[in-house]
Order: sequence, then C-alpha cells, then structure tokens
Amino acid sequence: MPAREREIAMTMDRVDAYLESHRNAFEEQLKALIRIPSISAQPDHDADTHRAAEFIRDDLAAMGLKTELIETKKHPLVYAESLAAPGKPTILIYGHYDVQPPEPLEPWLSPPFEPTVRNGNLYARGATDDKGQMFTHLKAVEAWKKTVGTLPVNVKILIEGEEEVGGLSLEAYLPDNKKKLACDFAVISDSSQFAPGQPAITYGLKGLAYFELLIQGANRDLHSGTYGGAVANPLNALATILASLKGSDGKIKIAGFYDAVKPLEDWERAEFATLEFSESAFQSDLGVTSLEGEAGYTTLERKWARPTCDVNGIFGGYAGPGPKTVLPCKGGAKLSFRLVPNQDPKTVERQFREHVARVCPPGVTYEVINHHGAPAVLVDTKTSGVKAAVRAIEASFGKPPVFIREGGSIPVVGLIKEYLGVDTLLVGWGQNDDNLHGPNEKFALADFHRGIKASAHLLDELARESVS
Amino acid sequence: MPAREREIAMTMDRVDAYLESHRNAFEEQLKALIRIPSISAQPDHDADTHRAAEFIRDDLAAMGLKTELIETKKHPLVYAESLAAPGKPTILIYGHYDVQPPEPLEPWLSPPFEPTVRNGNLYARGATDDKGQMFTHLKAVEAWKKTVGTLPVNVKILIEGEEEVGGLSLEAYLPDNKKKLACDFAVISDSSQFAPGQPAITYGLKGLAYFELLIQGANRDLHSGTYGGAVANPLNALATILASLKGSDGKIKIAGFYDAVKPLEDWERAEFATLEFSESAFQSDLGVTSLEGEAGYTTLERKWARPTCDVNGIFGGYAGPGPKTVLPCKGGAKLSFRLVPNQDPKTVERQFREHVARVCPPGVTYEVINHHGAPAVLVDTKTSGVKAAVRAIEASFGKPPVFIREGGSIPVVGLIKEYLGVDTLLVGWGQNDDNLHGPNEKFALADFHRGIKASAHLLDELARESVS
Repeated sequence: MPAREREIAMTMDRVDAYLESHRNAFEEQLKALIRIPSISAQPDHDADTHRAAEFIRDDLAAMGLKTELIETKKHPLVYAESLAAPGKPTILIYGHYDVQPPEPLEPWLSPPFEPTVRNGNLYARGATDDKGQMFTHLKAVEAWKKTVGTLPVNVKILIEGEEEVGGLSLEAYLPDNKKKLACDFAVISDSSQFAPGQPAITYGLKGLAYFELLIQGANRDLHSGTYGGAVANPLNALATILASLKGSDGKIKIAGFYDAVKPLEDWERAEFATLEFSESAFQSDLGVTSLEGEAGYTTLERKWARPTCDVNGIFGGYAGPGPKTVLPCKGGAKLSFRLVPNQDPKTVERQFREHVARVCPPGVTYEVINHHGAPAVLVDTKTSGVKAAVRAIEASFGKPPVFIREGGSIPVVGLIKEYLGVDTLLVGWGQNDDNLHGPNEKFALADFHRGIKASAHLLDELARESVS
Repeated sequence: MPAREREIAMTMDRVDAYLESHRNAFEEQLKALIRIPSISAQPDHDADTHRAAEFIRDDLAAMGLKTELIETKKHPLVYAESLAAPGKPTILIYGHYDVQPPEPLEPWLSPPFEPTVRNGNLYARGATDDKGQMFTHLKAVEAWKKTVGTLPVNVKILIEGEEEVGGLSLEAYLPDNKKKLACDFAVISDSSQFAPGQPAITYGLKGLAYFELLIQGANRDLHSGTYGGAVANPLNALATILASLKGSDGKIKIAGFYDAVKPLEDWERAEFATLEFSESAFQSDLGVTSLEGEAGYTTLERKWARPTCDVNGIFGGYAGPGPKTVLPCKGGAKLSFRLVPNQDPKTVERQFREHVARVCPPGVTYEVINHHGAPAVLVDTKTSGVKAAVRAIEASFGKPPVFIREGGSIPVVGLIKEYLGVDTLLVGWGQNDDNLHGPNEKFALADFHRGIKASAHLLDELARESVS
C-alpha cells in the first residue's frame, strides 16, 4: 500500500474508531432531538420547531463549524459551513428537522415523541424522517472534526424546518443565496434502502401536487328529514367529485393529466424486474386482499414511476358515536397527486381546477386550496459523485447499492438543481416499512450507525473527485 | 248557551287563566330541563340522560299522576297515568327527553345547554326537539289537575330517552305492554307548523334507514409517496361507493329502491300546490345557489313525499391543519335514506348491502352497520280524533290547521300503529327553521304557550268523542 493510501486508511480507521466508541452518545443525542415535537404543520408547536433548529445549530457549533440560525416567515433554517479544504470539492448536505403530525395517536405503541427502542429499532415520529437520517451526516462531520480536526472536503450544511409543509422559506432563500450555497454535489439522506441488507441510491423521485377541496352547501347544518332531498348535500357532492378523479382501471381521469408523463424506459423496466421484490410478501405485509393500481404496470413501476391520486383526508358532518340525522352544510378533503417526470405541478393544478369546475354538482360551491407542489426529479447515474457514493456505501454496508426510484417527493432536490445547478446524491438509510408519516415510525439503529459511517466515508471518497 | 256548554266554557276559562298566570314558571321549568345535556348518542352523558328522565318523572308526580321510571338496557322510559275518567276516551301522550349531539359547537351563538332567549325565541339543544314540544302536554295536564283537579279524559304519558338513537328500548317495551298502553288516540308534538301563523296537522312522515359504512385498506397508515398507486386507498374507495348511490338527476341508483314507493296521489299534489310556499324564499334562507333534488318534483314534494339519500358524516385520514401526505388505512361515512310509504327498511337494508357489495372497489374491505330503521307513516285525516285536534288548534292558534306531510321520521308512530292499533295525532308546534339537529336550535316561546293551550283544549275536545 503506497504511503498516501496508507495514510488515508489510517485516517479512516481513526474516524471509524470514533464512530464505534460514540454509538451510545449518538443515540442519546438523537433521542434528545426527537423528543422535541417540531411539527411544522401545527402552529401551536412553533416554539418546539424553533427549539429543534436551535438544537441542531448548537450541535454544529459544538463541532467547531461556523453556524447561523436564519429566521424566516415561518420556521428557521440552520446553516453551517467548513470551507477549510482548498482545491477540494464542496458538498452541500441537506436535511430537515421538522416532522409530520403524529395523528392518529391511538395506534402508537409508545408515545410519538418519547423515542423507544424495541427489537433494535428506534420508534418515534421523526426517527427516520428526517431527524435520524439527517443526524447521520452531522455525526460523520463530528467524527472527522474530533479525530482529524478538519474535513477532507468543503462542507455546507443546510437544515430546514418546513419540508413537511411545502418548504416555502427554503424556496425563498435559495434564489438569493446561490453563491453562498454553491457546491459540486448535494447529499441528502431522506429516502430508503431497497430492502434490509440491500442499500440503494435513489435516482428518481416523484413530484407532488397537494390540494384541499372544500365544499359548501347551505349556510347552516340542517335536519336531514326536514330538508333532505330538497337541497344539495355537500358530502354527496364531495364524493361525486372525488370519485370522478380515478377510473376502475386506476387511470386518473383528468383531461390532459398524462400528456407530459415521461414513459418508463426499457432499461428501467428491465432493471426493476431484476430486483428481488415479492408482490405477495408486499401484499401480505400490508394485509390487503389484493394489490390495486394502474393497469399495465408492476407494483414497483406503480410505486416509483407512475403518477398517483390519493385522498389523504376527508371530513364533514357528524363523525361521533352513533347516528345523527344531520344534512351538513360543508365538508372537504385533502388530496394529492404524486407526479412523475416531466409533469409540471402548475399545469396539474390548472387541470385539476378545470376538472373540479366541470364535475362539481350544482347547488354547492367549492374552493380549491393549493397546499404545495414540486416537480419530479431524475438524477444522472453516471457521474463521479454517484460513483463515490457507491464506494462509500459499500465500505459501510458491505454491499454495493442498487439503483432505484422512489414514490416520495423531496422537492428540495428540484430546487437544488434549479438554483445551484447540481444533482443530488440520494443516499437513504431507511427501510420501506419504517412507517414514516404513519403511527409507529421507526429507524433501525444498525442503519443509523451504518449511515453515519457511510457518510464519513463519503466525505473521504468525494475528496478524491476532481472539482468541476 | 245551555248549562252544560256554559260549564265547559267556564272550565276552559279557568284552565286558560292558569296557563296565562304560569307562563314564566313554565318557561323556567323548561329551561331547567334543557340544561340537562341528555345526549343519548354519547355514553359519557348517560348520567345526564338518566337525570332528565328523573326530572320528568318528578314533574309528573308533583301533578298527582301515578308515575314510573322504567329502567332499560340503555336510557329509562318515563310512564305516568291518570285513569279517573270512566267512559271517556284514553289518550296516549308520547314525547322524548333525549337530544341530538350539539356538535359542531363553534356556530352556536350561545352555549347549547344554556337556554338563552333572543327575539322571543328560546335557543338551546332540545328547545323544540323534543323537550319544549313534549313539555307543552305536561303543562296542559298540570293546568287541568291544578284547576279542575281531574282530567276530562284518561291520560297515559310515555316519554322515552332513545328517540335520537333508534328507540330500541321503547321498541322492546311496547310488545309486552300493549294492555297497559291501550288507548283510543295517541298524541305527539314532535313536528312543525306549516309556517309562522299557520298551524298544521302532519298526516305523513318519512321512514328512515340509517347506516354507517366503514372501509378498511392496509393494516396501517402508509406514506402516500412510498405506497401510493400500489395499494387501494380506502377514502378513494369510499368516495366511489358514495358517489354511486345517486345520479345527477337526483334519483337513487340502488337496484329496486323505488319498487315499493307509493306515488303521490293527485289530491296531495293539488293540496300541496295550494300552500303558500316560496321556493325562492326557501332557497334564499338556506343561502344556496340553486335548489337541487329529484327531477320531476316540487320542493314540497321532495321534502315530504319522495325518498332521499344523504351522507350525514364522513371521516378518515388527516383532517388537521396543513397538508399530510398519508395514505390512510381506513375511513367511513354515516349515511341515511329517508323512506316513504310503502318502503320497508329491512328491504332497503338488503338492497343497500347488495349495492355496496357490487360497487365496492377491489383491494379494500367494508363493513355496513345498521344504526336504525323505521317505516314511513300515513295517517287517516278523516277520523274524529283528527277533527278534535283541528278544533283544539283553532281555539289556541286562532286559525285552523292545514294538512301537511313531513320529511322527518318519528318511528314510534309506526310502532304505536303496529302494537296499539291506533293512529297518532301529530300536532306540531315548531317552525321549519328551528334548526333542530343543527346549531342554534330554537323554539318560539309564543308557540310554546300556544302549544300548551292547544293541548289543554285537546283534552277537552277529545272528551266529547265517543269511545271506540
């Protein structure tokens, strides 16, 4: 082994040893962060959300990075940087400290904001999405700083608090700070491995167009006997509109919706088909009587590369125990479309609004609220950054990653491409059954530590890449 | 005026004078009853519901009637009788002391269980349905007892506490107590006048078939990105089922649903057409953009004599503030059909279940819960009892009543016909805009007092009828 190689190997040994000896400390720090209920969608948690930002700022400052807590109209951004590697690449690490609402609370086996370990998994809201995954990069940076004293590449860290509610503050911040955030690669861990024991790099993400549809009937709730049959019922109207969105073939029935959809390429369908994926195991895990989706596509293709339409919530009238013979005056639904390349969320919004205008029954009025939208993303798999990530992951997980796409949306990946001009390395440490957004969200502690190690190695691997 | 007639007139003068001097006392007593939140659908109010029964029992006992509080599997029945008029008819007065849930609470201008007078109306849950209307008969009996010392007819009073939740306890009690409850006429005030200043006798009521439809998808809530498009969404499925129930022509699309429907007779359509009813005023009061219902029928016909299908409540997924990208594992709706003669609730239940089985999309499972059912009722308008009611109402309201039908359901009317073999005099003192079952339920105090007087006179008028 040449002297330079040996030196690097010895460096990595020291970093790895630090990680090994700090496993317990890292877990306790993550638990402390998780205990802060930073639910960005719920204004009564605004103070908690701010506290989570301070926690991360303080953690990064303690490592010796230059840090900044950037106040916004809503939840603050945390920024930190270490630019002490001249001539080396600059990488931008992104993550988010905000979490989804924990509701419904009843199915949680342990309280959502009291992290609890069962069977090697850490259960809590935010365990994997994204506090746990984001934290792996912070601890990798810490290991380098505490052992080597410096980082092998230039690192910029940007952690936001509105990922679960549309990320408007970050979207507003990026255009004015393109120089400050300039980088050669972006790195994000907010996705999943392909399966336990099979790490993955995600090269495609779906976009999102999320709406709320509100229907108003009469100016007050009415007795369903006295008024029923003589005035439109907003809940019946809501059902009519929602039912019109999708056909029994799983196709979305909005005019023009598929016009911009980029079809799956032959190599992708072939690659997906080689992955070890059991439709029957998938079905059995979910406990459903059958797998349903768009006709003509496999489950992986539906999950990763075809647009969807899901009602996320529905409300109106009486939902308490027993019967109530009310003719409600209003109701509504939250619904979202997962978009694929090259659908434009603005076009989908226009098509959705036109569709509702066309199918809304008479006698009621409606309002469409656009909660947020983001286009889908496809990353070039042939770059040197992707190759560095492959090596780093193999060093930590003992196996090279497979290339997959993902049905979730990480809108910031599109923004990074748009404003900073770089692709993002999507190196996810989660598992598909982590229940992110649902009750009993979890993160395997083994993956937490493997993620930290992979991130530490990624800094080293990227240091060997030439700067563009 | 012959001596006998003069004596009767003097008696009624004494009764009327008692009513006049007790207006304030009656109002305060009604308010005390209304303050008891006897919400039969909500088990945490069971103690309140029992307390309301005791209140009525105590009030009747204080008048000198023989009373009984009959415990049931759920909420007690109150029974009282005065059988001291041999050779005179026996009348059964029915009412209910339970009320609908007050939710949603936000639109109430004053707390639902703190009766508040505004513009001559008493606002509270139960003000008209049915505490206020039921109470008119109790106070009429009191007036006779406290002035004349005895009642001119035999009176049986039966007040239940489950009218708003299906009335199962009364339904179970009736078959075993046919002799105890035997009567010549039943009298109920749980309906409305035709309009302010125009009293009415209701000769037709709709029936009801009330269901809850629960849809189950996966065994847990899922991330709509990771799983969307690959597994059926129970809320989309729910919308599909609900939307299939009714066509854009307002017709219910369940096979066989109209088979047993008794068409409106020509004289009824002619009679309804003579009533002073402004569709534009009705629409404007409700604040809707148009009146919608079954094609080919007027608003009064739709309200009174055509079957309906209304979603009463809908629930599932995330309904909090902001977006949540969840693919919910379950959802449901409460929905009800108002039935007309001669539809059978059991047949409608079977037809509804067959329909759901046929249209429920694959990949989800469902459950249909039958909350309650009752057939519609038509009363013969030519009986001597109806004629007595016409005279009593004219004496109190200064105007003879018109004959109308009503879209609401009073299932006990069908049970009284079935088990006791008699028709019911439906003498309602409410108004159509009383918001029963909705927020800001009200009862005009003037109608409260006119109702008491009409009931007091009705006892006198029925005393002149021959016993069958």
